[in-house]
Amino acid sequence: MTVMLKAARADIPAYSPSGNECELFEKAWVRQLPLLLKGPTGCGKTRFVSHMAAKLNLPLSTVSCHDDLSAADLTGRYLLKGGDTVWVDGPLTRAVREGGVCYLDEIVEARKDVAVVLHPLTDDRRILPLERTGEVLEAPVGFMLVVSYNPGYQNLLKALKPSTRQRFVAIEFDFLPKAAEIAVVATESGLDEARVAPLVALAHRLRALKGHDLEEGVSTRLLVYCACLIDSGMGVREAVRAAMIEPLTDEPDVRAALLEIADAMIR
Amino acid sequence: MTVMLKAARADIPAYSPSGNECELFEKAWVRQLPLLLKGPTGCGKTRFVSHMAAKLNLPLSTVSCHDDLSAADLTGRYLLKGGDTVWVDGPLTRAVREGGVCYLDEIVEARKDVAVVLHPLTDDRRILPLERTGEVLEAPVGFMLVVSYNPGYQNLLKALKPSTRQRFVAIEFDFLPKAAEIAVVATESGLDEARVAPLVALAHRLRALKGHDLEEGVSTRLLVYCACLIDSGMGVREAVRAAMIEPLTDEPDVRAALLEIADAMIR
Amino acid sequence: MTVMLKAARADIPAYSPSGNECELFEKAWVRQLPLLLKGPTGCGKTRFVSHMAAKLNLPLSTVSCHDDLSAADLTGRYLLKGGDTVWVDGPLTRAVREGGVCYLDEIVEARKDVAVVLHPLTDDRRILPLERTGEVLEAPVGFMLVVSYNPGYQNLLKALKPSTRQRFVAIEFDFLPKAAEIAVVATESGLDEARVAPLVALAHRLRALKGHDLEEGVSTRLLVYCACLIDSGMGVREAVRAAMIEPLTDEPDVRAALLEIADAMIR
Amino acid sequence: MTVMLKAARADIPAYSPSGNECELFEKAWVRQLPLLLKGPTGCGKTRFVSHMAAKLNLPLSTVSCHDDLSAADLTGRYLLKGGDTVWVDGPLTRAVREGGVCYLDEIVEARKDVAVVLHPLTDDRRILPLERTGEVLEAPVGFMLVVSYNPGYQNLLKALKPSTRQRFVAIEFDFLPKAAEIAVVATESGLDEARVAPLVALAHRLRALKGHDLEEGVSTRLLVYCACLIDSGMGVREAVRAAMIEPLTDEPDVRAALLEIADAMIR
Amino acid sequence: MTVMLKAARADIPAYSPSGNECELFEKAWVRQLPLLLKGPTGCGKTRFVSHMAAKLNLPLSTVSCHDDLSAADLTGRYLLKGGDTVWVDGPLTRAVREGGVCYLDEIVEARKDVAVVLHPLTDDRRILPLERTGEVLEAPVGFMLVVSYNPGYQNLLKALKPSTRQRFVAIEFDFLPKAAEIAVVATESGLDEARVAPLVALAHRLRALKGHDLEEGVSTRLLVYCACLIDSGMGVREAVRAAMIEPLTDEPDVRAALLEIADAMIR
Amino acid sequence: MTVMLKAARADIPAYSPSGNECELFEKAWVRQLPLLLKGPTGCGKTRFVSHMAAKLNLPLSTVSCHDDLSAADLTGRYLLKGGDTVWVDGPLTRAVREGGVCYLDEIVEARKDVAVVLHPLTDDRRILPLERTGEVLEAPVGFMLVVSYNPGYQNLLKALKPSTRQRFVAIEFDFLPKAAEIAVVATESGLDEARVAPLVALAHRLRALKGHDLEEGVSTRLLVYCACLIDSGMGVREAVRAAMIEPLTDEPDVRAALLEIADAMIR
Repeated sequence: MTVMLKAARADIPAYSPSGNECELFEKAWVRQLPLLLKGPTGCGKTRFVSHMAAKLNLPLSTVSCHDDLSAADLTGRYLLKGGDTVWVDGPLTRAVREGGVCYLDEIVEARKDVAVVLHPLTDDRRILPLERTGEVLEAPVGFMLVVSYNPGYQNLLKALKPSTRQRFVAIEFDFLPKAAEIAVVATESGLDEARVAPLVALAHRLRALKGHDLEEGVSTRLLVYCACLIDSGMGVREAVRAAMIEPLTDEPDVRAALLEIADAMIR
Repeated sequence: MTVMLKAARADIPAYSPSGNECELFEKAWVRQLPLLLKGPTGCGKTRFVSHMAAKLNLPLSTVSCHDDLSAADLTGRYLLKGGDTVWVDGPLTRAVREGGVCYLDEIVEARKDVAVVLHPLTDDRRILPLERTGEVLEAPVGFMLVVSYNPGYQNLLKALKPSTRQRFVAIEFDFLPKAAEIAVVATESGLDEARVAPLVALAHRLRALKGHDLEEGVSTRLLVYCACLIDSGMGVREAVRAAMIEPLTDEPDVRAALLEIADAMIR
Repeated sequence: MTVMLKAARADIPAYSPSGNECELFEKAWVRQLPLLLKGPTGCGKTRFVSHMAAKLNLPLSTVSCHDDLSAADLTGRYLLKGGDTVWVDGPLTRAVREGGVCYLDEIVEARKDVAVVLHPLTDDRRILPLERTGEVLEAPVGFMLVVSYNPGYQNLLKALKPSTRQRFVAIEFDFLPKAAEIAVVATESGLDEARVAPLVALAHRLRALKGHDLEEGVSTRLLVYCACLIDSGMGVREAVRAAMIEPLTDEPDVRAALLEIADAMIR
Repeated sequence: MTVMLKAARADIPAYSPSGNECELFEKAWVRQLPLLLKGPTGCGKTRFVSHMAAKLNLPLSTVSCHDDLSAADLTGRYLLKGGDTVWVDGPLTRAVREGGVCYLDEIVEARKDVAVVLHPLTDDRRILPLERTGEVLEAPVGFMLVVSYNPGYQNLLKALKPSTRQRFVAIEFDFLPKAAEIAVVATESGLDEARVAPLVALAHRLRALKGHDLEEGVSTRLLVYCACLIDSGMGVREAVRAAMIEPLTDEPDVRAALLEIADAMIR
Repeated sequence: MTVMLKAARADIPAYSPSGNECELFEKAWVRQLPLLLKGPTGCGKTRFVSHMAAKLNLPLSTVSCHDDLSAADLTGRYLLKGGDTVWVDGPLTRAVREGGVCYLDEIVEARKDVAVVLHPLTDDRRILPLERTGEVLEAPVGFMLVVSYNPGYQNLLKALKPSTRQRFVAIEFDFLPKAAEIAVVATESGLDEARVAPLVALAHRLRALKGHDLEEGVSTRLLVYCACLIDSGMGVREAVRAAMIEPLTDEPDVRAALLEIADAMIR
Repeated sequence: MTVMLKAARADIPAYSPSGNECELFEKAWVRQLPLLLKGPTGCGKTRFVSHMAAKLNLPLSTVSCHDDLSAADLTGRYLLKGGDTVWVDGPLTRAVREGGVCYLDEIVEARKDVAVVLHPLTDDRRILPLERTGEVLEAPVGFMLVVSYNPGYQNLLKALKPSTRQRFVAIEFDFLPKAAEIAVVATESGLDEARVAPLVALAHRLRALKGHDLEEGVSTRLLVYCACLIDSGMGVREAVRAAMIEPLTDEPDVRAALLEIADAMIR
């Protein structure tokens, strides 16, 4: 269920579906249902949204959520202009006014007030009340809300509350199957598939260590980085270390073990 | 005790009562008693308030509470206009000045100062003192305060203090009985009742797991989402997974168990 | 020691004393001693202060304290007017300038700096220093400070420090004796005393559970609510549940037990 | 070592010394040493400073410290005037510019930055650097810094650091001996000494309970309150309860025990 | 893998590579991959970046991250100018607009929102969305992001999340081998190599204690300081104590042990 | 290694060195190395810096650090002037622009961002980047940074990170030897050496208790205070209590023990 192939049409970001995710996105769009994407780092959630928005010819507004992102960053705030306070819409408000897909990436990272601001937008009212201006915006038919998060990070402080989750249709993403991933990495990096194959095999091996010695497995993105370095003339072992091992761990013992696995598998 | 039927009159949101909640709302309104609605996510509390406000022909002002909602967000604040600070009423102050229902959704999420601002409004004084302007507003006969929260979320940090709770007449909401819920989901989604029935049966089964493997049961809203997807042509199993299982859990073991239950009950 | 009888004179809120609290208030007033009222939720502390202020013909300024109430909210702050910062008195400063009773309700809820601002006002200096303006206000003979709190809520973080407590003469409030409470509830609700009596008996029974299953007992206010609903034609059992049980607990087991007690005592 | 006698000269607050504290204050003044007063609530530290400042004919500036008092509250801050930011001195800066006694009451309550702002003022430099304006003020010969705190409250978070304490000459205050306290209470309240004596005896008994059932003993101030109420005609038992027992505790068991002690000793 | 030799060409900071780090930097630059530098204090990460930026003829913008550095410090903020709020770019935004290397030193120290702001810049989109202005900047070909941190400091609160780490190619830095370090210190300080050699030997001995008695080993920078002091005529033992021992520890026992080691090795 | 002798030349604060600290300061100055002073309260670190700055004829800028001192307090901030925001340099920025010694007293007290702002100033770059204005200031040859802290206070939250410490040459300060301290105290207080000697002996005895019953030993400053009081005619025992015992402890038991030691040694 991933990502990163060259686009067929120049203006639609390439995406090779690995399940029913495109059908589900389209049906959710038609029935005006909000959508929740779940999955690990770098498996293509962001690319998928870009792809679908372009395919359905919708404007796309993406917000990367973080610890300090508050409701006001999404809805808007008063700024001083010429001595007056003037209201300036945030990205969510603009999307509700103008329609299109509003994509909130890593929603669980945001401050709690963000999740609750989404509530009236994600039930049958489909409204965005702006408490500070007194406005109540009705979302047009052409508005769709998509959010994502990585279940691997969830903890007690950073989990979507059931009252928020239950407002979304949800899709689980995972890494691509081996053959598809080889094709993607080769296409993205320019390295031929025969030389990509052992890198992907190594990545699958390292992903199996997730939860034991590693917090997260190698992403397809790192595989592409590694293949890029090799394609630029760097030695395979050096490229693997720089792009597939050093980004995963700082523990000397774990690094040594990963390098051994890599040496055994890569030549 | 729920929600979501097409409205008889175009301007009153549909609501099919499942108990004495409509009578209680009307009597509280007549005797000027504040009202507290308790119940799980997506069981229709917000729709009920919209329904009653429209039926009694009252303006309705809804505020979704969140962690950063403070008393000033409700009562108002000073803003800069042309170099001066000008007082701008918040939604609660507007409702007290003009009358009507002021509905504070998920009140326990708000900051503690909100609850205490409500105190003088909810005893026999029925006043809203605005400390920052020095005004003391008396609530008109036509003002009613309604608040809601989900008892399932309560914890030590986020509970209504007795001194606040004891200022409200309270109603406990729960999900609809099976037959009523089938009717609601069929009406809302367009899917015929025969195809809705097994979905509702599954939902009742999953709700029984709440507190064991699931933090919260399937809401009527998710049932409607699921029926919408099926009505759009998606396979039943896929729709159930996307709308009734993925939104409930991220645990692979729990998800597998829920899918097994669904497979056994849905075909 | 409570509250809520119709006023004899139209302009004095009714209050039926249950001890020496009126005498104590008057003597504290004459000798310029600050007063501390202690007691549970809804037992009439606020009404008592309104009653005494009206009886002594004093202006009354009430401030509901909360977690975010700071000294500046009481003393005043600088606001922007026409590009300048202008000092605006808070309610405490206004009361010290103009005389009258300043009543701080639930003082332990306020931020710590509030308590200390009260210190120079509550010793023999009777002054209010405004550090930010450089003024030192001397309280006039006609100024009296009254504060209240509910000892049931006290915890380590939210307790009056001895250096603050020892600046006040203190009165302990409690609920009314049974006969007096029946009279009050009947008068306030319009329901006849015979029908009020079993409600009050039930309330006394439920109050005995405080500290075991209930955080706080039924207030006289809730009894009045309950009688109002019955007086409006609602069934007794429904009214008791909505006004005397649901506001006390969300625990299914506790609610069931309370309903059983109610059923046994009310019909 | 206390307080509260009528002043001999109208313009010097009365103070009856109980040790060498007056001599120590004067010598510290002559040698320009900063002074630290330690002692329990209501034992007369504040009155002592007023007395000495008046006796030495020095202007006195008192600041009650609290949790939110910051260095800027003492030194000053920029305010907007006519569109410009204008520096406004705080009380400490004014005292340093103009000379006189600056008294910081309950210094340990203030924010940590306050203590450190005092450092350059309390070593041989005797300077107050104003970082925000770039000024460095030299304290004139006529400037003296006095601070106080109650050692009974100290805890890990709220203690004077050694690097601050070691900048002060220190005096320990305690309650007055019995005979002296009887004289003070009689003078302050107007009640004759024979009727005051058993109240003082009771206070001494209750102070012995400090650290066991009581966080702090009865202050001389509360004794004066109690005598005032009796002098106004209130019954002794009622006055003792309102002024000497209720302000000390909210625990029903402790209150009952104190009332028993009082009953045994007061009549 | 270090630093600090006099530059061959006047305008390129000297750097003597100890591995493939220069090749890796150049290839990452060519393929537009973001780079992560890991390594202990004072091992030359900052110098390496200066060297490479100068060698590739790129403008360099360095930001030292700290606990209070937020996304807005990097991206920009609104400031008041003549009564209007005007947007002012932060260093990251300037680098994205104008191209060149943007180096974020000690990235884990920064607030969490910084890491997430980097996400859209470090995947295939290479964009910097400015939520507050509504702009979306595309990084030009000539833009490169480099970040660094010291794995020795990592803890639960201060670690790069996998979703951030996996966006970078990574290099591990360590101290120089002995001979190279002697050459560097001699060149930087002016002290001859024979006198530098025992200092470097001592440093290697002390670094072996890291994790036991010492939190961190002696940096090359401290070695240069020590050699500078000796070159200025200070005694070796005094210089070693001031530049290589006192900066490492405050524990009397540890200091005594280190001095013994030094005495044994340095004469 | 202390302090407080009358200056030989009127414009250089007196300082009697007890080790190589003057030589080390001068060499650090010549080689442009930043300096870290470590030592207990009141042992003369601040006086030493004043002495050296005057001796080398350098302007001195001293900042007392505290919990709320942030990087912006040192580097500068934007202020409103006539409706515009204008940048105003902080003391560190002024020192970097104009040269001279910038002394940050008790650096560990400051907020964490302060330490990191010092990093680019304390490696070979010697620059101060002002992120908010976009300027990068190069420190002139005549700029020297000196910081100090008291290792006795260090804890997990308040320690200099190795990456900061390793940027400084460091000196450990301690109290003066007995004979030197007697001379200093006699000179500063005016009391003859014979009467000072037993006070110093007592101080040395009390310092030995540090870490057991006392958090910190008696400073030379307190010894001078004590001698001043005696020189003013106060009794020795009273002066010792006020200046050498009360400032050290509030514990009744510890105070009694210290008084016994004093009584045994002082007469």
